[in-house]
Amino acid sequence: MLPGNRVGRYTIVLPNRPEICSTSTVVGPQEAQGPLAGDFEVRKTDRLLGQSSWEHAESHMLQEATGNAIRKAGLKPEDIDLLFCGDLLDQITPSSFTARELYVPFVGLYGACSTMAEALALGSVFIDGGYARYALAAASSHHDSAERQYRYPTEFGAQAVPSAQWTVTGAGAALLTSGGETPRPCPAVTHVTFGRVVDLGVKDSSDMGSAMAPAAVQTILQHFEDLGVDADHYDVVATGDLAAVGHEIASVLLAEGGLKLGGRFVDCGLLIYDRQQQDVKAGGSGCGCSGVVFCGHFMRRLLQGQIGRMLLVSTGALLSPTTYQQGDTIPCIAHAVAVEGPSAAGGHRR
Amino acid sequence: MLPGNRVGRYTIVLPNRPEICSTSTVVGPQEAQGPLAGDFEVRKTDRLLGQSSWEHAESHMLQEATGNAIRKAGLKPEDIDLLFCGDLLDQITPSSFTARELYVPFVGLYGACSTMAEALALGSVFIDGGYARYALAAASSHHDSAERQYRYPTEFGAQAVPSAQWTVTGAGAALLTSGGETPRPCPAVTHVTFGRVVDLGVKDSSDMGSAMAPAAVQTILQHFEDLGVDADHYDVVATGDLAAVGHEIASVLLAEGGLKLGGRFVDCGLLIYDRQQQDVKAGGSGCGCSGVVFCGHFMRRLLQGQIGRMLLVSTGALLSPTTYQQGDTIPCIAHAVAVEGPSAAGGHRR
Repeated sequence: MLPGNRVGRYTIVLPNRPEICSTSTVVGPQEAQGPLAGDFEVRKTDRLLGQSSWEHAESHMLQEATGNAIRKAGLKPEDIDLLFCGDLLDQITPSSFTARELYVPFVGLYGACSTMAEALALGSVFIDGGYARYALAAASSHHDSAERQYRYPTEFGAQAVPSAQWTVTGAGAALLTSGGETPRPCPAVTHVTFGRVVDLGVKDSSDMGSAMAPAAVQTILQHFEDLGVDADHYDVVATGDLAAVGHEIASVLLAEGGLKLGGRFVDCGLLIYDRQQQDVKAGGSGCGCSGVVFCGHFMRRLLQGQIGRMLLVSTGALLSPTTYQQGDTIPCIAHAVAVEGPSAAGGHRR
Repeated sequence: MLPGNRVGRYTIVLPNRPEICSTSTVVGPQEAQGPLAGDFEVRKTDRLLGQSSWEHAESHMLQEATGNAIRKAGLKPEDIDLLFCGDLLDQITPSSFTARELYVPFVGLYGACSTMAEALALGSVFIDGGYARYALAAASSHHDSAERQYRYPTEFGAQAVPSAQWTVTGAGAALLTSGGETPRPCPAVTHVTFGRVVDLGVKDSSDMGSAMAPAAVQTILQHFEDLGVDADHYDVVATGDLAAVGHEIASVLLAEGGLKLGGRFVDCGLLIYDRQQQDVKAGGSGCGCSGVVFCGHFMRRLLQGQIGRMLLVSTGALLSPTTYQQGDTIPCIAHAVAVEGPSAAGGHRR
């Protein structure tokens, strides 16, 4: 009886354990000065990347990250069966321009800052079911292109409130394939949980951490309930970009829900910057935030064995400037992707 | 050896033949006066639908279409495993608001007017592989919300050039499940071909038919090549919204490519309006165009046996007002979904 590949009500099991055989990251100058700088592959010193606009700079970063991920796997663009990709800009044009350059079948996504997990989840399912041999999952954001689209003209230099977040300038790409295709053991995606939209009525686009925290908590609690595992099942549970305000709220809500993750519970938006040294207010945000922190920082640790199993929970605030100006509240979502390093107990190719 | 479920280079085979067990459509007044009026389930007489803005009206239509598709299948929202949905507005807010009301796992898509096929293709793969029991695919657009976002303030009443298209006010939803779950035979999705981005340099956002035609042709030729079938394999090959200009270009390019579809080759954007009686310039466009024409018009004919096999090829122009103003060309895409009616030779539950 279908559906065969599910556990609990909302979680998909991937019995064929699709593997992440290559990742690549490109970041901007602010990220290159942060504590994770050494985990990023390409570090730009110029926010414009020599392009004529920030929008073009973002497209350029995404093209570089996806191209590098393909090349590092010893492949060419024509080997890729599907590109799952999205970003924050209207009509996700950086992703479309990247798909045009790669010239591979393209599934355009919009999940705001949840996009990296959304893309990884979709790509993993396609690999698991044998619907693709190589799938590329990618996401990008750029501080300056996002700032002027969502808030104020970037050159205006509007002051940010303490709960505001700094959009990460970065692009992350991850190449997925089946275990049998990889020359050496790679981190495997074992489960994915697509999130439901939660909206508790927050209207302040300068406080997206508060808006997104309940969606993250719902997906995390659902995932643990579906798997029937305890708080110590994962070495790391990493949200995308709750930042300081949202992370604190989520920690309280998780504990109220009976899940005490302690130091295992981290946030990509808090890891990527040094908030004492860098003026990023509550921390990082943007599709590129969990994109580069997962593809750079966490992938390195999964490969090195410092992390056995982790849950990536990219978080997205699904507002638009129009809905914000029309007084609507902010719907939020979080998708979860469980990844197991080759060293994990019960890991690769049992 | 993976991948098992593919034919040719770019086409995915769905051996378990996921079925479209229910569809629903909601259209606006212009569409309700067109030649397909009788094929649409809910016909609105007011473009605002009693809402405070066109954006809210579009969200409302999408909620009504998705809710009706679920109810008509005898299901409740909590039975739905995944909603694949997108629209034309910045950050696809009508889709997110719909996902919030349905409260089901949500995969947000952006494929411009290719969204209906993109959603159907993804949903079909998830059903085929047993990753979901019920998947809902949906898309919407609204003339007035699109007009002011992409072109001019709607109230300004800018004159349109003859090659311009009229964005369809409409929402379509299709519920997918495995054949074993449906009480009676339903149209089945047999193959999907995700498109590659084609950009031949068109910059005119008032001539999207010319921009999209080459992408549609590429996907159609690729699909026929992958399957190794002749021009008479499908009773209907329906593009999404090439309209008058794009349809003529595509017909020529297909013939040059050796595929003479003749009267089988139709376009949803031409079918939905009477261009002699209605001032829609080249014809219809928008995610809702192939959304309502497929879910309303073609589904009825597939069920009634007037169509045995058809190929839906929704077409999308992946521009944004920003990229347009920055002088970029228009990347385009087309996704193809092959659907077989219960009466087709070699059809349901062989």
